[in-house]
Amino acid sequence: MSQDNNKGNADPLSELLEALKQGSLGDIRHLLADLHPADIAHLLEGTPLDQRLVTWELVQAPIRGEVLLEVSEGVRDDLIEAMDSHAVVDAVRQLDTDEIADLLPDLPDEVVAEILFTLDREDRQRLDTVLSYPEDTAGGLMNLDMVTVRDSVSLEVVLRYLRRRGDLPESTDKIFIVDWNNRLVGSLQLTTLLGSDVKKRVHDVMNQDVVSFQSMTPDRDVAAAFERYNLITAPVVDVENRILGRITVDDVVDVIREHGDQAVLARAGLSVDDDIFASVSESTRNRALWLGVNLITAFIASWVIGHFETTLSKMVALAVLMPIVASMGGNAGTQTLTLTIRGLALGTITGANAPKVIKKELMIGGLNGIIWALVVALVATFWFDDILLGVIIAVAMILNMITAALAGVLLPIMLNRLGIDPALAGTVALTTITDVIGFLSFLGLAAVFLV
Amino acid sequence: MSQDNNKGNADPLSELLEALKQGSLGDIRHLLADLHPADIAHLLEGTPLDQRLVTWELVQAPIRGEVLLEVSEGVRDDLIEAMDSHAVVDAVRQLDTDEIADLLPDLPDEVVAEILFTLDREDRQRLDTVLSYPEDTAGGLMNLDMVTVRDSVSLEVVLRYLRRRGDLPESTDKIFIVDWNNRLVGSLQLTTLLGSDVKKRVHDVMNQDVVSFQSMTPDRDVAAAFERYNLITAPVVDVENRILGRITVDDVVDVIREHGDQAVLARAGLSVDDDIFASVSESTRNRALWLGVNLITAFIASWVIGHFETTLSKMVALAVLMPIVASMGGNAGTQTLTLTIRGLALGTITGANAPKVIKKELMIGGLNGIIWALVVALVATFWFDDILLGVIIAVAMILNMITAALAGVLLPIMLNRLGIDPALAGTVALTTITDVIGFLSFLGLAAVFLV
Repeated sequence: MSQDNNKGNADPLSELLEALKQGSLGDIRHLLADLHPADIAHLLEGTPLDQRLVTWELVQAPIRGEVLLEVSEGVRDDLIEAMDSHAVVDAVRQLDTDEIADLLPDLPDEVVAEILFTLDREDRQRLDTVLSYPEDTAGGLMNLDMVTVRDSVSLEVVLRYLRRRGDLPESTDKIFIVDWNNRLVGSLQLTTLLGSDVKKRVHDVMNQDVVSFQSMTPDRDVAAAFERYNLITAPVVDVENRILGRITVDDVVDVIREHGDQAVLARAGLSVDDDIFASVSESTRNRALWLGVNLITAFIASWVIGHFETTLSKMVALAVLMPIVASMGGNAGTQTLTLTIRGLALGTITGANAPKVIKKELMIGGLNGIIWALVVALVATFWFDDILLGVIIAVAMILNMITAALAGVLLPIMLNRLGIDPALAGTVALTTITDVIGFLSFLGLAAVFLV
Repeated sequence: MSQDNNKGNADPLSELLEALKQGSLGDIRHLLADLHPADIAHLLEGTPLDQRLVTWELVQAPIRGEVLLEVSEGVRDDLIEAMDSHAVVDAVRQLDTDEIADLLPDLPDEVVAEILFTLDREDRQRLDTVLSYPEDTAGGLMNLDMVTVRDSVSLEVVLRYLRRRGDLPESTDKIFIVDWNNRLVGSLQLTTLLGSDVKKRVHDVMNQDVVSFQSMTPDRDVAAAFERYNLITAPVVDVENRILGRITVDDVVDVIREHGDQAVLARAGLSVDDDIFASVSESTRNRALWLGVNLITAFIASWVIGHFETTLSKMVALAVLMPIVASMGGNAGTQTLTLTIRGLALGTITGANAPKVIKKELMIGGLNGIIWALVVALVATFWFDDILLGVIIAVAMILNMITAALAGVLLPIMLNRLGIDPALAGTVALTTITDVIGFLSFLGLAAVFLV
């Protein structure tokens, strides 16, 4: 399974779309049979809605559960909607308890009831445990499959125990060492276990400085710790340091990817679950809200301009130039906003250094304001043969770019404190401010000094 | 080292900034002594430039190399600039060859020469190997530390070999199985090794279906494969399938984070290396270029408006309303652009399904255009008591939102083909188009039918 980008072969998505066009179901079945569930999920993501359901019919029953687990939420909803509840139960039942827990919120009630009915008591309890934590916490990320041993035994005993156990949980890089109360006291890397004298005791070779997480730690912090300390697995503990489960790096990779995607999409009022092939009506509805919010800000800008109708009627050049002031403020502010949101997310901007950041951004805003104001003033002066007009647009631009810098830093800090996602609300609020100040300063100064 | 978000304790960054303010170097030294190099790197990222250099002086020499490795490029340049070349050589010399290779491009020439001089022949060869691949390829990501065994031996022999070797490379989850020509034939999970009968031969328990990468595979594709198949390590091979090195998930996590950050920052004309505490002059310069590019687009919009001076002078209401048409087009277009760029990056949009995406986006653009055009028409009609004005702004808005949808899909596809990053250039190009079409359609229709 070499990932060698062989340009000679068509990629599986093109192959699938071609086969769908030809209606050759045999070819599709053949193509799907060789693929990993994650690859099938990827194909489904890239297939338009109607053809997606045809393809889904051809996915073999035993791996349907795993495919459902891998697709994005928007696509998952479509697939589940197209299946009868019996088929959904069959698909989900093949999965581990932790995986079932991930799917459960997306399933119809009668399916959930039927799945709970088919589980034995132990599995139902495990499911309850996993479901008791919110999805975006360490508890929600963890799985319950792990190996723990006591610190008093010898490595030889550990090796014998592992061999008797047979298969170790996926992604196991270390086993967790606990005391008699199931409290975490250390970890033993498999590499250490394999490289040490088997006569030694666990206590002598284990690592006592384990990065662990409380069950309610936000997934963002879990991801940051995995990144920073290069972790592959880490234990989740309760307040008394008793071990509850473990988090594996593959789930953390998904969190990092999802947060990155969210950050990009939120700036356009979109969500991670927006499927590129969702129905037109659904997509129109999802996007309409954001456009509506933006229409309000556009009306606010128009309302400001409306106050200067007399000024504008006396000098139309103002109408020609006014978008420049607003747009430069918007762009400069977006730069500051983007860096500030990122600094807050990475934890490099805190209350203690925020004043320095504000000061620095104000200076950058001022400097870039001066540089570009000079250029604009020059062009405006020659275009309309009016020096005063040039001076006024320059002053308005500098004012707006300083305001933009201030808003770019303060808005995300404030929104963060209020618990509002600055990536989503920040852009709209910033544009409103830079539009209003841009039009107000330019037309206002013109009204006083020019007309 | 529990990540338990204990609000009672101040976070290390606040503690450091407080100690810096107090000038209590002893406290800082004490704080730094307990921290992981990655944590120190994080503190340095959050410290304003002058105080950052004071803090850096207090970081203990033996871990300076690792800290340099963990900080972002912008911060790294500042730190290296502040050190004399002797200190840089000392810091870098503590690192592994692969790590040295990552730093080398950022080091002054005389330091590079001195480091090469201090390495023995074998290490210099290893360094050459790693440096021969571009940073953003599988070869550039790989490290050379790995364990390989032949498939004919028994597990008992492998266990003995590992024990004799003592310490295994970090993040080893599997060892690679090679033939006599060092060609990859399989992999053996440590968990399998630990759970199987030691009398068995490697060939009988190894996994023959290993995900491997060619040395020139782009890092983006490596990251996608790690995500999709939940990999922890994967081998890099040459065209003859001989094993060159291995990639570990911690490096892939960095790639994913960096690509995510790039996607967000590029939309504001910023780069990952922009340090929130870089000097004002440096930041002003970095951001000025983007603002300059945006100024050109703003002038293009003004130039379009300029053609309608007579129309505007006859009816100032047009100047009041005209930003609405441009802004709604810009926002609708950004939504399409964002989804398309993401679809291209994830590989869910290809040549084969692009026509469907275009058709769908045009329909959404048209529908949302109609919905919001009606709202705007209503407001405009009552505001200026002019039904014809309402009809004209509605038609202009629908035209602009359909254009925006078309541009939102086609621009990134075209830019991608031309090898230009659509995240960077797409936004500017799109805004230009939606501004021009917005002003042109509204003022143009008004010129013909209204004035």
